[in-house]
Amino acid sequence: MTITRTDLRWNGWGPIDQPTALPDAAPAWAMIADALGMAAPLPTTPATELAACTLPASGLDGEMRFALERIVGANQVHTAAYERAFHARGKSYHDLLHLRGGDLSSAPDAVVYPRSADETQRLVQFADANAVVLVPYGGGSSVVGGVTGRAGAETRLCLSVDTTLMASLLTVDHTAMTATAQAGIYGPALEAALAAHGVRLGHYPQSFEYSTLGGWIAARGAGQNSNRYGKAEKWLVSAHLATPTGTWRTEASPASAAGPALTQMVAGSEGTLGIITEATFKIRDIPDTEDYRGFLFRDFSTGAEAIRRIVQADIPVSMLRLSDRDETYFFRALASASAGKTPSLKDRLAETYLRLRGYAERPCVLLVGMEGDAAGVSQARRRAARIIAACQGLAVGTGPGTRWKAGRFHGPMLRDPMMDRGLGVDTLETSTFWPNIEHLHACVSNALRQAISETLEDARQQGIVMAHISHSYADGASLYFTFVFPRRRDGGLAGEVAQWLAIKQAASDAILANGGTISHHHGVGTDHAAWLGQEKGPIGMRLLGAVKQSFDPNGIMNPGKLIAGS
Amino acid sequence: MTITRTDLRWNGWGPIDQPTALPDAAPAWAMIADALGMAAPLPTTPATELAACTLPASGLDGEMRFALERIVGANQVHTAAYERAFHARGKSYHDLLHLRGGDLSSAPDAVVYPRSADETQRLVQFADANAVVLVPYGGGSSVVGGVTGRAGAETRLCLSVDTTLMASLLTVDHTAMTATAQAGIYGPALEAALAAHGVRLGHYPQSFEYSTLGGWIAARGAGQNSNRYGKAEKWLVSAHLATPTGTWRTEASPASAAGPALTQMVAGSEGTLGIITEATFKIRDIPDTEDYRGFLFRDFSTGAEAIRRIVQADIPVSMLRLSDRDETYFFRALASASAGKTPSLKDRLAETYLRLRGYAERPCVLLVGMEGDAAGVSQARRRAARIIAACQGLAVGTGPGTRWKAGRFHGPMLRDPMMDRGLGVDTLETSTFWPNIEHLHACVSNALRQAISETLEDARQQGIVMAHISHSYADGASLYFTFVFPRRRDGGLAGEVAQWLAIKQAASDAILANGGTISHHHGVGTDHAAWLGQEKGPIGMRLLGAVKQSFDPNGIMNPGKLIAGS
Repeated sequence: MTITRTDLRWNGWGPIDQPTALPDAAPAWAMIADALGMAAPLPTTPATELAACTLPASGLDGEMRFALERIVGANQVHTAAYERAFHARGKSYHDLLHLRGGDLSSAPDAVVYPRSADETQRLVQFADANAVVLVPYGGGSSVVGGVTGRAGAETRLCLSVDTTLMASLLTVDHTAMTATAQAGIYGPALEAALAAHGVRLGHYPQSFEYSTLGGWIAARGAGQNSNRYGKAEKWLVSAHLATPTGTWRTEASPASAAGPALTQMVAGSEGTLGIITEATFKIRDIPDTEDYRGFLFRDFSTGAEAIRRIVQADIPVSMLRLSDRDETYFFRALASASAGKTPSLKDRLAETYLRLRGYAERPCVLLVGMEGDAAGVSQARRRAARIIAACQGLAVGTGPGTRWKAGRFHGPMLRDPMMDRGLGVDTLETSTFWPNIEHLHACVSNALRQAISETLEDARQQGIVMAHISHSYADGASLYFTFVFPRRRDGGLAGEVAQWLAIKQAASDAILANGGTISHHHGVGTDHAAWLGQEKGPIGMRLLGAVKQSFDPNGIMNPGKLIAGS
Repeated sequence: MTITRTDLRWNGWGPIDQPTALPDAAPAWAMIADALGMAAPLPTTPATELAACTLPASGLDGEMRFALERIVGANQVHTAAYERAFHARGKSYHDLLHLRGGDLSSAPDAVVYPRSADETQRLVQFADANAVVLVPYGGGSSVVGGVTGRAGAETRLCLSVDTTLMASLLTVDHTAMTATAQAGIYGPALEAALAAHGVRLGHYPQSFEYSTLGGWIAARGAGQNSNRYGKAEKWLVSAHLATPTGTWRTEASPASAAGPALTQMVAGSEGTLGIITEATFKIRDIPDTEDYRGFLFRDFSTGAEAIRRIVQADIPVSMLRLSDRDETYFFRALASASAGKTPSLKDRLAETYLRLRGYAERPCVLLVGMEGDAAGVSQARRRAARIIAACQGLAVGTGPGTRWKAGRFHGPMLRDPMMDRGLGVDTLETSTFWPNIEHLHACVSNALRQAISETLEDARQQGIVMAHISHSYADGASLYFTFVFPRRRDGGLAGEVAQWLAIKQAASDAILANGGTISHHHGVGTDHAAWLGQEKGPIGMRLLGAVKQSFDPNGIMNPGKLIAGS
């Protein structure tokens, strides 16, 4: 089961016919405008219709099309405008700025849909022999420029290779608790197929509904329940790639000392070595019980302390998600505004109670998820609760957990309506060791706030910057930042891109200068490539280059991604 | 704190003055001879004295010595016979055959002892500029030829680089639960230094007393408690290497999507990229409680099933070690014979009870280790006991666990006296996924038995082949084989090496042909290099070669190891 491209938005998130998450009449707009210091009503900034965009002519000639069709089949080579536009870019704010602004200069010359690992291998070797650039494309949900078609000054023929016709679960092994699937399978289809066997992979990124197994591995992604299921590099057992130098099935064993783990070079390779066609991954039984509940903390510091202690005590949780003051406040305000009514007596009494207990105006909410059998979950909950109480966290029941679960994949759906109303919204993420969490949180928040302020036309305006700890480990945690800002509209598309770039640059510089990684789970793509060298160092970058050269001597695989200038 | 080389055996295990683990008069000899079909008393096959060995002249001239002394200090360049012999090889049976046979042809020209990462870096760059081969050497406990000085047909000047003067714990971070140490620190010194801070790394290979942090990482080793503490690649956070192309400090973050995890290329690199000088690793609090106890199973299959279910249920154990019938029988017989008395009435009653319960003559013993706080251990024990009972395992108390702990590092000490008495003894290990465990166990056992038989002079003789599951994972487990055989003594050293090679070849072929990895934790070195290509595939090997080339274009770092022909 895959998703027909024309059912999906080429320049936004999700299905075309999906109702807007924030209707024009929504009371939340006033709250958002107020928080940004903007005058209501917010401006109208609609996206350019596809027909009004300038789509470069496809460079695919009849001979090349014929050759490609011989490999992947007659109906699997597309040059229709919608296909090319759909595959022009990923789904970052930066991508959407270009797409909504009518810039399709990055559109591939064509889109090909191989149907098997064998077809993919033949496609890659054909492309290598003919100096054709290939851009692997699964769900296309990259938010770092990882699937941009024609990147930079590329002049070669450029094909987007859509893997979503390779979407079958191949085997399930209930003894080894592993499964093998084709890499182009979407999250929901994969989990549905696994659920028929009573098992799950458990990788639920926010993009889950519109991203694929291969993309999760290529970008070294993380799901929301990574405490239990692990990041992609942890659940990946072995991968099968089509590369310019041949088919590569990476080594497979539960553990080995037979040289370095080469499978680990696939996780995070971002399509620069080859196209992932199949993967074997760890699975788990579907748990009997899932328990998600909320706790309030007086500040970010004590909440982070609770997470650290829970993880270091090996308590089997599936998720620990701590919103900082601003994020907690924003989403509570958004929910209140959306409800569109004054707080009830009960709500006001609850507020008063919290204030009396010392949970001041802006507490931090921690969501704790636990999965397993009922006894195990109950045991884990008691152990976690003791640590949380010791850190002065206050249990607020399952309500926040239930609400979070209901909307866990909806975040990106808010972006399209916000971009329709003159607002910019973007996210970025990093990780660092526990002693540095608060420092990095402060530095990146401040860098974002300051950079946003410097880009604004009106001194009364300001950005909204908020963050949460989304993934945690014994030695540290990730920080996920969301920022909303009034779009600068006096310089056209170029001005808007410059505004974004100034903010992005400030945040990325702050991350690298303060001990963070340039990405915890989004990847590098084009957008982070300039910072990768600072993190990997010159010797690490030379190593990456050598690996790339070994697989792809002619540089046809996703050039410009991961390694700057590649 | 390091260990003076002249206090240690250059051609055996442990300190020179250590009492033999099996005195000539030990009653166990008769039992061993009987099991091997050999006539008692066993022959006497003493090792060649160092003075009687032929040590090639050192190629280190005065000019080169002076240059090296300028880098590492006047007292840190050694050409004394004991130093060169000590660093000629590691500690495999194959190594000991050569050393005890008086073959020191692999001795390095000299041994250098850098005292810092900076000295090591300068040494590596000097060697690179002067076509000098460097062989990194920590404890020298490799059993796969990983530290052989002059390997193959190498003609360049060859230096063994002993890292054990770099033996300090540098930092302990109680918040991130990580520590950083110099790589040449021995196991006991590292754990003692960590214990002063209330923490441990928890990496306890059988070689623990005579192996180093850097060696554990370079060989991608595993400790006996890996269920809790993980293999080297799991606890390694970041490494610092001296390489021919410069100092490399690998990226460090709790988790990242900033391209592939290059730190993982260090684990298993076996000194072929550079010399590990420092490492940051995960630590844990020293547990309040340690509980090790034994269970008997009717056969290997039900015992393996219990391990699989315990691991897949996430029960927090530190060790699960299941001996097969032959290993259980051999060590019980050895213990009985060593006790040197007829079984007591109590022992005979216990035997009868077991037989009546269906635990026939040769049951399989499972050792279960648990560590943590008292409540956690107690909980884990109850959960594990339920699974064990369901698999018809029979609790036999803490006795086996206590005995195992007391002798956990003593295995290698049996080898020297056995080699003194005409016996060969070697170990090898692999891993595979759960569905394949019994098959691989049978194939490798049979291959070993048959290959040993084919090498024996006397048809009444036979080998002893036994195995245990030593490390377990959700998706599979390792198998560790020990085999004892009468040494073929009619062809001199060459004949003995040929005997070993025939056995090794048969076992390695059986491993690769039946879905195992060529090594789970010993590494590749020279001994497994011929099989690595089958496991990694041609594309994997080209990748390894490209990485090697990127770090070490002149091939001075541990040539001949890991990559055949390097």
